[in-house]
Amino acid sequence: MSKAFEQQGVEDLRKEIDQLNHEILALLNRRTTLVKAVRAVKDAEGRAMPDPGREVAQVQTLLLENPGPVTAKSIERIYREIFRSAVEDSVPERPTPMLAGSRPMLRRGGVMVGDVQVGGGAKPVMIAGPCSVESAEQMEETVRFLTDMGVRLIRGGCFKPRTSVFSFQGLGLEGLQILSDTVKRHGAMSVTELTSIEHLQDTAAGADLIQVGARSMFNYELLKKLGEVQRPILLKRHFAATVEEWLMAAEYLAGHGNDRIILCERGIRTFETQTRNTLDLSAVALIKERYDLPVVVDVSHAAGRRDILPALARAALAVGADGLMVEVHPNPALALSDSQQQLGFDDFSTLWASLFDRRGGC
Amino acid sequence: MSKAFEQQGVEDLRKEIDQLNHEILALLNRRTTLVKAVRAVKDAEGRAMPDPGREVAQVQTLLLENPGPVTAKSIERIYREIFRSAVEDSVPERPTPMLAGSRPMLRRGGVMVGDVQVGGGAKPVMIAGPCSVESAEQMEETVRFLTDMGVRLIRGGCFKPRTSVFSFQGLGLEGLQILSDTVKRHGAMSVTELTSIEHLQDTAAGADLIQVGARSMFNYELLKKLGEVQRPILLKRHFAATVEEWLMAAEYLAGHGNDRIILCERGIRTFETQTRNTLDLSAVALIKERYDLPVVVDVSHAAGRRDILPALARAALAVGADGLMVEVHPNPALALSDSQQQLGFDDFSTLWASLFDRRGGC
Amino acid sequence: MSKAFEQQGVEDLRKEIDQLNHEILALLNRRTTLVKAVRAVKDAEGRAMPDPGREVAQVQTLLLENPGPVTAKSIERIYREIFRSAVEDSVPERPTPMLAGSRPMLRRGGVMVGDVQVGGGAKPVMIAGPCSVESAEQMEETVRFLTDMGVRLIRGGCFKPRTSVFSFQGLGLEGLQILSDTVKRHGAMSVTELTSIEHLQDTAAGADLIQVGARSMFNYELLKKLGEVQRPILLKRHFAATVEEWLMAAEYLAGHGNDRIILCERGIRTFETQTRNTLDLSAVALIKERYDLPVVVDVSHAAGRRDILPALARAALAVGADGLMVEVHPNPALALSDSQQQLGFDDFSTLWASLFDRRGGC
Amino acid sequence: MSKAFEQQGVEDLRKEIDQLNHEILALLNRRTTLVKAVRAVKDAEGRAMPDPGREVAQVQTLLLENPGPVTAKSIERIYREIFRSAVEDSVPERPTPMLAGSRPMLRRGGVMVGDVQVGGGAKPVMIAGPCSVESAEQMEETVRFLTDMGVRLIRGGCFKPRTSVFSFQGLGLEGLQILSDTVKRHGAMSVTELTSIEHLQDTAAGADLIQVGARSMFNYELLKKLGEVQRPILLKRHFAATVEEWLMAAEYLAGHGNDRIILCERGIRTFETQTRNTLDLSAVALIKERYDLPVVVDVSHAAGRRDILPALARAALAVGADGLMVEVHPNPALALSDSQQQLGFDDFSTLWASLFDRRGGC
Repeated sequence: MSKAFEQQGVEDLRKEIDQLNHEILALLNRRTTLVKAVRAVKDAEGRAMPDPGREVAQVQTLLLENPGPVTAKSIERIYREIFRSAVEDSVPERPTPMLAGSRPMLRRGGVMVGDVQVGGGAKPVMIAGPCSVESAEQMEETVRFLTDMGVRLIRGGCFKPRTSVFSFQGLGLEGLQILSDTVKRHGAMSVTELTSIEHLQDTAAGADLIQVGARSMFNYELLKKLGEVQRPILLKRHFAATVEEWLMAAEYLAGHGNDRIILCERGIRTFETQTRNTLDLSAVALIKERYDLPVVVDVSHAAGRRDILPALARAALAVGADGLMVEVHPNPALALSDSQQQLGFDDFSTLWASLFDRRGGC
Repeated sequence: MSKAFEQQGVEDLRKEIDQLNHEILALLNRRTTLVKAVRAVKDAEGRAMPDPGREVAQVQTLLLENPGPVTAKSIERIYREIFRSAVEDSVPERPTPMLAGSRPMLRRGGVMVGDVQVGGGAKPVMIAGPCSVESAEQMEETVRFLTDMGVRLIRGGCFKPRTSVFSFQGLGLEGLQILSDTVKRHGAMSVTELTSIEHLQDTAAGADLIQVGARSMFNYELLKKLGEVQRPILLKRHFAATVEEWLMAAEYLAGHGNDRIILCERGIRTFETQTRNTLDLSAVALIKERYDLPVVVDVSHAAGRRDILPALARAALAVGADGLMVEVHPNPALALSDSQQQLGFDDFSTLWASLFDRRGGC
Repeated sequence: MSKAFEQQGVEDLRKEIDQLNHEILALLNRRTTLVKAVRAVKDAEGRAMPDPGREVAQVQTLLLENPGPVTAKSIERIYREIFRSAVEDSVPERPTPMLAGSRPMLRRGGVMVGDVQVGGGAKPVMIAGPCSVESAEQMEETVRFLTDMGVRLIRGGCFKPRTSVFSFQGLGLEGLQILSDTVKRHGAMSVTELTSIEHLQDTAAGADLIQVGARSMFNYELLKKLGEVQRPILLKRHFAATVEEWLMAAEYLAGHGNDRIILCERGIRTFETQTRNTLDLSAVALIKERYDLPVVVDVSHAAGRRDILPALARAALAVGADGLMVEVHPNPALALSDSQQQLGFDDFSTLWASLFDRRGGC
Repeated sequence: MSKAFEQQGVEDLRKEIDQLNHEILALLNRRTTLVKAVRAVKDAEGRAMPDPGREVAQVQTLLLENPGPVTAKSIERIYREIFRSAVEDSVPERPTPMLAGSRPMLRRGGVMVGDVQVGGGAKPVMIAGPCSVESAEQMEETVRFLTDMGVRLIRGGCFKPRTSVFSFQGLGLEGLQILSDTVKRHGAMSVTELTSIEHLQDTAAGADLIQVGARSMFNYELLKKLGEVQRPILLKRHFAATVEEWLMAAEYLAGHGNDRIILCERGIRTFETQTRNTLDLSAVALIKERYDLPVVVDVSHAAGRRDILPALARAALAVGADGLMVEVHPNPALALSDSQQQLGFDDFSTLWASLFDRRGGC
């Protein structure tokens, strides 16, 4: 340390440091202004940004000319932040364009299920039906009720992935037959879940829309096989999947040949205990605003309870969802699965009427 | 166990338990009769009920005198039900599904902020303004713009709880003065956050609605003090609070004397990384459907990004929220805090117009 | 309301209420004392508790004799808490006995993998090997190194469930052959993951211990099939599974015939971002203290980084785990998967030595 | 963009940017030279470094004077690196992997609480005592028991932040007096939580180690005040705080003058319900391996149950914690708070003996 410094007091030194801060800030602002100017010129000329090669060159130059005492490592770190700051400032303040280009494998626009279009600007669809196919009578009663109201997509579980080995596991192939026959007789389309490669051919034959359940979203071997099938896929989000992982699961389908994909948000697992899952409508907004992929919302599984289901259905449509999935059962209290969350016919009629009034469709 | 018990048979013991049940029931009925008498006297005198401060005191007394073996936790639980029973009995059976009786401390219906009603069937309100008060010029520009559009509740942070000690910490009392003066001059009402008991008097004097930020929801000492203040409170949900804990925080306010509470959902912390928080609209639905308490939604903090903010605002109103909170700044890119999520004037105008079209209000 | 009350002031009424509180508390404590006495007598006589039929009868009696004003619903609620309080008080303050009886389907004690015992009091085992089988050379080098050190259980992934469809998906059946041959040649046992029913027979033939990966824990169809296989199963916990769901997944295996199950904790998904997952050693403690089932800890996937791996390995053994799983690769930087978390040979030697010193085993 | 820029070519603009880089580098070197001079003067005068309060003030000044286009966030980031560079340069290159330089505000090594060293290579410490101070008798009994065993740091809550307004809220100042008197009489040190600025002076006078509870970790106004106090601080991690946010809370203390900080991990909130919180020992490993800051583990709050507490205590020490915090009560079943998780004297003796055997200390 030079003599001069020793004779200066700390306060004098600090005043000079403050003055340096002031000057550094001015240079940083000037620098960012210039970087923006470069970008504007290049935009006008149709040249792409950014140019990391140039950034590397600037740091190399500084490292070579640097007399110290700031170290090379510190210069790298400080300039990393300076480069970053210049980019952040220039993010255009415009309504986000849809970033289809950033997910080239995923097809934008609508997907046809039979003669019903889902997404792509079509009016919202309703997918309704019981959690599980329990008998031919139950299905006949439910499908007649729903199709009379105008519902065209009928759900019904045949292979049920239940948490407990003691729970009802679904009617299996027999249930698939009942679902398929009943729905066809009423001129509607069937939606059912596939849980195992083993039943792929039967399910593809009997269902108009094949559901990949939340628990299977990470089952990549199943997704690969479904990529080879000529059926649209309803891909539910796993309850612990990020939006990014969900879209990457969709890319497994698309990457193996099937891009007729309808995404289905159904709530994620959080610390909250009053709802079965926490419905993540921000995810729906993201998918619609950024990618315009078809996405429906399963409000029954999200809520896990009937009382707030109509409110969530309204919110799902308001946020931009292309449709709803709702569990409906002739007698929810006696249902073999999900008895807490299925709607009876009266409640469903009320829900349907309220949504129909508001939207003129659904 | 004493000898006496060993020599008694189970049947004898049970007879004595039955007799105790009989006596406990008599005391419970007598107690409820007296509580009703108190209520009648107070009603006659025009005094409001309930009086949670007194309830709290009763339990504290019992906890301190309790010799056991019943545990403190059990006493709390049993008395919570006893208090609930005394209130429920006096509410005539109505077909309403709202469980006001199950949260007797929390007042149903609307809360007045100046001359603006929030909740209780009023049309949704808009609370808007910058994240932080930065200067008199910034506030003048913002408040003029917002009030010209019809916004009556203006937010602006003066004491900012920032994650980093290096971040801008707000203008403090100077900011409070700017906020208060500017808002009054434009005939609007001010909303600002209180972060410390230290500034309680100044904030109560300068703000029409005092905000308890998410980070302070668990600050029970602050809530107790706010219970004694004659100002309505905007109680944000902590990003890791269950709905139950949030309502129990509201009970701290009500239990210490202030039941003019507006709840504010602003997203919870989950594993998802594309949004700053995960907006939990199920919580809003629960609070409206079950309790009918006033609740608004802060879409800015939930999303942490501008692109999906309008979609979330629509969903919040559709789910039944009594209002929205939105961060607005003349120049978001230069904002001293939350630059990623604040709306510029143009974006806010677009949002406002879209919500106004749909709802005829807000 | 009677005249008498009207003439009493609020304060007098409240004094009487306070006195009632005091008496109710005395009765509650007396009642709990008696319930404990009943229990003691019944314990002495070898009779089981609790007796919900008697609880129901008590409430029925009270409901019939109740003159009001307390309602029937309130009596139910209050007594539910009173019953609960009497049970909670009597929880014995003893070291918890293992609750094997509460999970009768799950076999306590050790599981044999070849001639190596896992759990049931055996010294902790080490399962090590690369994330993916990449070539015969890589496996030869790794297995020789590991078996020379004394490792007997060798892991290596053949069918890799990768988040991105673009990632290396494993060598498949070819990899299985390499793994099986190399491990046999060195007198060790092989551990590999099954991701699809399709490869069940081949994997059962080629692997000594079949791994169910975290993503497959909820794949109940796969678990049912594995119930029919004559191989021990390593059942990883899904990163969003509760301990209860994990044990119920094990019950799918046991309920379909295979109770040779080794559980494997590998971290759960939380909001924390500095580690790939949050290692949940409380879950390991719970499983050992309450059920004494075999459980190992995959520290590599939990941490997702090398620096804290030795510390986590020590903690896992200290908490009572029956073994560790660690990813080892001849050249981690060049690994086709999980390059951030695999250990090189030197690092593994250091880890091994440190654990060996402390435990005299592993 | 101004006309001038449009007419300039990209190359001209870049030349000017290069010139700015050159000038910025010169200012940075000059700045570091001055910071070193300040340090030298202060060293000569025996004053400690660093001075984060001054760093905070510099950034605040720049944020307020900044005309843009560089954003506030970018200024924070760039200056964080500039401050870091000035400290790093002066630390001689050593082979240690600990990244002290990356958190220059946080002091490495041990913290003294009275005559007990926590961290910095000292043998692990035990902090024990009841959840709440309930009476002089309870404290006398507990402190005598604990000090007889060799425990030197005694905890006891006086101001209790309880979720329910009905719960016991602590004895307040009376409890503080009891704690302080009893602990002093037995020659030990007291640890108690501060929940409000209001009781800062009393708590600083009566406690040897001031605890910031999990709920208060985000209470930055409280942290700022504690920065000015001459007492070591036990900073608990909020149950929803990332490790990064926790360290940034510590920087609030250090940045306002108090770097005698002991971190305390106590579990985070996840979806798991069998434990009160999920103990995150990876966080402890990270803090020890990367920063070598003092960190203890509160196993009682993490587990929320007694049965797995000894296993977690062993794991905490194995992962490298500098100590444990355990709740001990003469009669846990009758405790006014946390009755499920406090240890009785017998259980604590057993725990103590088992840890003592293994570690020769604690």
